[in-house]
Amino acid sequence: MNPNLEIDNIDLKILSLLMEDANMPYTEIAKRVYVSGGTVHVRMKKMEEMGIVTGAQLKIDHSKLGYDIIAFLGIYLEKSSMYHEVASQLSNIPEIVSIHYTTGMYGIFAKVICKDTKHLRAVLHDKIQKVQGIQRTETSIVLEESVERSVKLEI
Amino acid sequence: MNPNLEIDNIDLKILSLLMEDANMPYTEIAKRVYVSGGTVHVRMKKMEEMGIVTGAQLKIDHSKLGYDIIAFLGIYLEKSSMYHEVASQLSNIPEIVSIHYTTGMYGIFAKVICKDTKHLRAVLHDKIQKVQGIQRTETSIVLEESVERSVKLEI
Amino acid sequence: MNPNLEIDNIDLKILSLLMEDANMPYTEIAKRVYVSGGTVHVRMKKMEEMGIVTGAQLKIDHSKLGYDIIAFLGIYLEKSSMYHEVASQLSNIPEIVSIHYTTGMYGIFAKVICKDTKHLRAVLHDKIQKVQGIQRTETSIVLEESVERSVKLEI
Amino acid sequence: MNPNLEIDNIDLKILSLLMEDANMPYTEIAKRVYVSGGTVHVRMKKMEEMGIVTGAQLKIDHSKLGYDIIAFLGIYLEKSSMYHEVASQLSNIPEIVSIHYTTGMYGIFAKVICKDTKHLRAVLHDKIQKVQGIQRTETSIVLEESVERSVKLEI
Amino acid sequence: MNPNLEIDNIDLKILSLLMEDANMPYTEIAKRVYVSGGTVHVRMKKMEEMGIVTGAQLKIDHSKLGYDIIAFLGIYLEKSSMYHEVASQLSNIPEIVSIHYTTGMYGIFAKVICKDTKHLRAVLHDKIQKVQGIQRTETSIVLEESVERSVKLEI
Amino acid sequence: MNPNLEIDNIDLKILSLLMEDANMPYTEIAKRVYVSGGTVHVRMKKMEEMGIVTGAQLKIDHSKLGYDIIAFLGIYLEKSSMYHEVASQLSNIPEIVSIHYTTGMYGIFAKVICKDTKHLRAVLHDKIQKVQGIQRTETSIVLEESVERSVKLEI
Amino acid sequence: MNPNLEIDNIDLKILSLLMEDANMPYTEIAKRVYVSGGTVHVRMKKMEEMGIVTGAQLKIDHSKLGYDIIAFLGIYLEKSSMYHEVASQLSNIPEIVSIHYTTGMYGIFAKVICKDTKHLRAVLHDKIQKVQGIQRTETSIVLEESVERSVKLEI
Amino acid sequence: MNPNLEIDNIDLKILSLLMEDANMPYTEIAKRVYVSGGTVHVRMKKMEEMGIVTGAQLKIDHSKLGYDIIAFLGIYLEKSSMYHEVASQLSNIPEIVSIHYTTGMYGIFAKVICKDTKHLRAVLHDKIQKVQGIQRTETSIVLEESVERSVKLEI
Repeated sequence: MNPNLEIDNIDLKILSLLMEDANMPYTEIAKRVYVSGGTVHVRMKKMEEMGIVTGAQLKIDHSKLGYDIIAFLGIYLEKSSMYHEVASQLSNIPEIVSIHYTTGMYGIFAKVICKDTKHLRAVLHDKIQKVQGIQRTETSIVLEESVERSVKLEI
Repeated sequence: MNPNLEIDNIDLKILSLLMEDANMPYTEIAKRVYVSGGTVHVRMKKMEEMGIVTGAQLKIDHSKLGYDIIAFLGIYLEKSSMYHEVASQLSNIPEIVSIHYTTGMYGIFAKVICKDTKHLRAVLHDKIQKVQGIQRTETSIVLEESVERSVKLEI
Repeated sequence: MNPNLEIDNIDLKILSLLMEDANMPYTEIAKRVYVSGGTVHVRMKKMEEMGIVTGAQLKIDHSKLGYDIIAFLGIYLEKSSMYHEVASQLSNIPEIVSIHYTTGMYGIFAKVICKDTKHLRAVLHDKIQKVQGIQRTETSIVLEESVERSVKLEI
Repeated sequence: MNPNLEIDNIDLKILSLLMEDANMPYTEIAKRVYVSGGTVHVRMKKMEEMGIVTGAQLKIDHSKLGYDIIAFLGIYLEKSSMYHEVASQLSNIPEIVSIHYTTGMYGIFAKVICKDTKHLRAVLHDKIQKVQGIQRTETSIVLEESVERSVKLEI
Repeated sequence: MNPNLEIDNIDLKILSLLMEDANMPYTEIAKRVYVSGGTVHVRMKKMEEMGIVTGAQLKIDHSKLGYDIIAFLGIYLEKSSMYHEVASQLSNIPEIVSIHYTTGMYGIFAKVICKDTKHLRAVLHDKIQKVQGIQRTETSIVLEESVERSVKLEI
Repeated sequence: MNPNLEIDNIDLKILSLLMEDANMPYTEIAKRVYVSGGTVHVRMKKMEEMGIVTGAQLKIDHSKLGYDIIAFLGIYLEKSSMYHEVASQLSNIPEIVSIHYTTGMYGIFAKVICKDTKHLRAVLHDKIQKVQGIQRTETSIVLEESVERSVKLEI
Repeated sequence: MNPNLEIDNIDLKILSLLMEDANMPYTEIAKRVYVSGGTVHVRMKKMEEMGIVTGAQLKIDHSKLGYDIIAFLGIYLEKSSMYHEVASQLSNIPEIVSIHYTTGMYGIFAKVICKDTKHLRAVLHDKIQKVQGIQRTETSIVLEESVERSVKLEI
Repeated sequence: MNPNLEIDNIDLKILSLLMEDANMPYTEIAKRVYVSGGTVHVRMKKMEEMGIVTGAQLKIDHSKLGYDIIAFLGIYLEKSSMYHEVASQLSNIPEIVSIHYTTGMYGIFAKVICKDTKHLRAVLHDKIQKVQGIQRTETSIVLEESVERSVKLEI
């Protein structure tokens, strides 16, 4: 069905619209890209098979659920070589929503979402600092999240 | 239709499942939460009206689209008071996918997705550093993104 | 006597006056808030029972007692997880007047009051650095204390 | 009445007890220091006249009043010479409870008490960053306040 | 003569040998790679035309010429956007042997070779700090250069 | 043949020309310095014997060979005394092209050339961080290499 | 002979002159302070007995003796509590001319005088880094020593 | 009288003894170096003429004169090029005893001696921060001065 696993401009246009709003109906997309609804379906299927589209994620206003604190953690490792071990332990902590291994001052850069400072303290003290291989963490509280979106593809 | 704008455990269970996989069919959710498909529908509708669920976002493997570089930017402002002005200019740059105003060393913390180092240089030099009010930026390249997910709600 | 453990504007006004000057007589407060002296008494009693007011602290001009040095210590822990252990040992040092566990560069932030630099050196070298779990401390000497007061409540 | 403005061990013992608990009754102090209640009264009067005791401050559990965030601000000045000007403007901000001029990385070190991160952001963005002479601030959120007390005098 | 501007393993092997020692005779290279001397010549010509090989550089022991100080400069720009302007001015300073625009703490990273600390001071104070757009420089003196070589290609 | 192992202005002029372009023919150099081709040959021979000229290095455009990432590593040692041990292990990593022992923040300053961020991550995680004695590394990606040349000798 | 171990203005004037130039003859000092030469002698004797004057130090132009490098070392200790141990070991290194235990980023601040960068490297690598208890050192080379003098006393 | 302005081992031995104790009598030196007192005199004269010995400095215990605070200042300049201007203004401040222009984080490194923290604050706020060209200063208080001496010459 998809003999040719290459992506063309039609694919990118469809993808761009869905990256802005994952809930846009295929009929609407079809109209905007000047193709049939079936084409939209086929193309999305192809991009899923190619591993370009790996799923979808609900956009949540955490503060409305009582999660008032978003924080970034810069994590210094005891030794840089412990990255995979530490990342694997961190991924078991439910409040951690992203883990990045970066160049720069810290070995690991993580994002946590907590209810309040008491919850944050508990996460830091009872969960993160119990992880083997972490020497020290620096925490930045997010005061305002202005943008959180997908990259805009060049087409 | 939703006289009682409060959320209960049923809501949270439904939300949790969709936060893990936004594409899970309502029938599947209904089965797991032991409610009817209609209830799932009504509850999601309510949570959208309450502003808890604000949309959905495709999950993309950027490297498969030729975007090989993810970077974090720590942005020092000329004066901290210029935050809103700078954030508003930054939001016009398509490669920037998140902007956070944080406590800690930097005024602004942003994430960019680029094709390669040449593209990153162009974004930094031709776009970001042209923004009025930015004094200096520090860039950390992401070597590995281990986790990028929703928070796991306590139910 | 206090069936209703809620606080109202009368409470806050009384509290505000006493937060500015803990020695203000209840008769003076009563006059300013337009209530009886008995009411002031009852309300303060309620706020003590609620744990809002936990006591009072003398305001001292330490330099008049020969304590000429106020310093802030940023304390790096060997491991962040040692916070409670270290804080508990630090609390036994009489020159330490506050201990805070903070996000940011240091694990612990403490304030010490000493007679002179010789006394400060003794505290640092003979007391603080003997505490198990401290890796390194950075000391900032206070050159001037401009403000030291209670928060002004919004009423 | 106080011909001899010097302080002796009796003074220091009385002071020490009141520094631990400013509400301790003079009769209790008299009993512990083995003097008459009148002596306690006379000595405290003398120490007030000497400017050693300058008042009293209520001890408040801010979280019980809905103030959930305590934060330290490191404030970099545009020029160090602007200290007095900046300190004077900062002292008009009701959320700021202490201002210190220190050696070390920052020119000014301040403590703020806020209701939540939204309140903190408003204080930082609308009040502190409007102050003329401030270049940049770094904010550390307090996760736990273990000790907040008077210095223990050597007697 | 070179209709096919692609590089193959023969090319890489020839290149690798010359990257280790640019003075190795073509006859020696030919012997080691099992090709004719003419082939080495043709391949090198092709790689020059392709812009892979852009020239050669003498390896000099600077200390034998009286140049005893090698230093790295981290250069903070007044504004990051001034990079090209500053780099262009720096390139006129004969003691500067490399200029890199980097992510990380500094805008520009440069290497200088000087005769002694007096010479270094003159270069810093009379040449580099006169460049428009530089705010501050940090200098690291090289105590030992253990390795300075070409990358070893994977073949 | 070289009774007098001193260098004069003729030597320096010849050297300067070759330091700008190591491939300049001796006949061209001879013409520019107003000496015979034989003299150029004799002088270069002498400078090689004196250890001033130690070889030549091809100048390569790495990006044309698929090496798209140049990075600087600041390497903190567990203990500064481990320098020689660590440098010796690092020199076995083919992607590392220079190693410097410096004053300043880091113990070791190294330069690596890699194909892409995946390759860089592999070098950092699988090779460099396995080296005994390294505590932590900070990586700066080069966005642009403006100058990479020999020092211009004062003649 | 000195029943009254107090210092007066005459003492301070004499001291000031000798602090500017330790070789100024007593007769010259006597003339300037309007006292007899004997008085100068008696006063200096008294100040030596009181431990105010502890000796004299030659002022040397080290560069004229072939010592071309002055450097400051910021020394991080493994644990701050090791200060006295480390200081005692450092004091055996002849190139170290001062050792200070300071508040601030480093535990110890030392000054070294060396012949050249080779000598500095030897001191750092073979002597200082062999000292037990030192974790890391940061070295700043002095480019120019503008002032090195005694404090000017307020008289 | 000194036809031969070179220094030999006799010179260095004499110098070494006087660098340890500038008050050692020439007769004692003569005895230890196995030369006549006249030789010591002649050699010292020569070394003064050569500019090796430039004077002598009293060694003072400042604390015995009521100067209780020694501090190091790291001074960031508005622009590095302002060094000479700033150094010249700083040299007029009597409390400053040394000024060094250094590589490393700060432009200028200075040492001040003050009576107490009040005096230090006055020097910082009223004198140093009034100097044109200074952006920011960091102050480290000396807790203990373990060593302050001349370099030990290699003979």
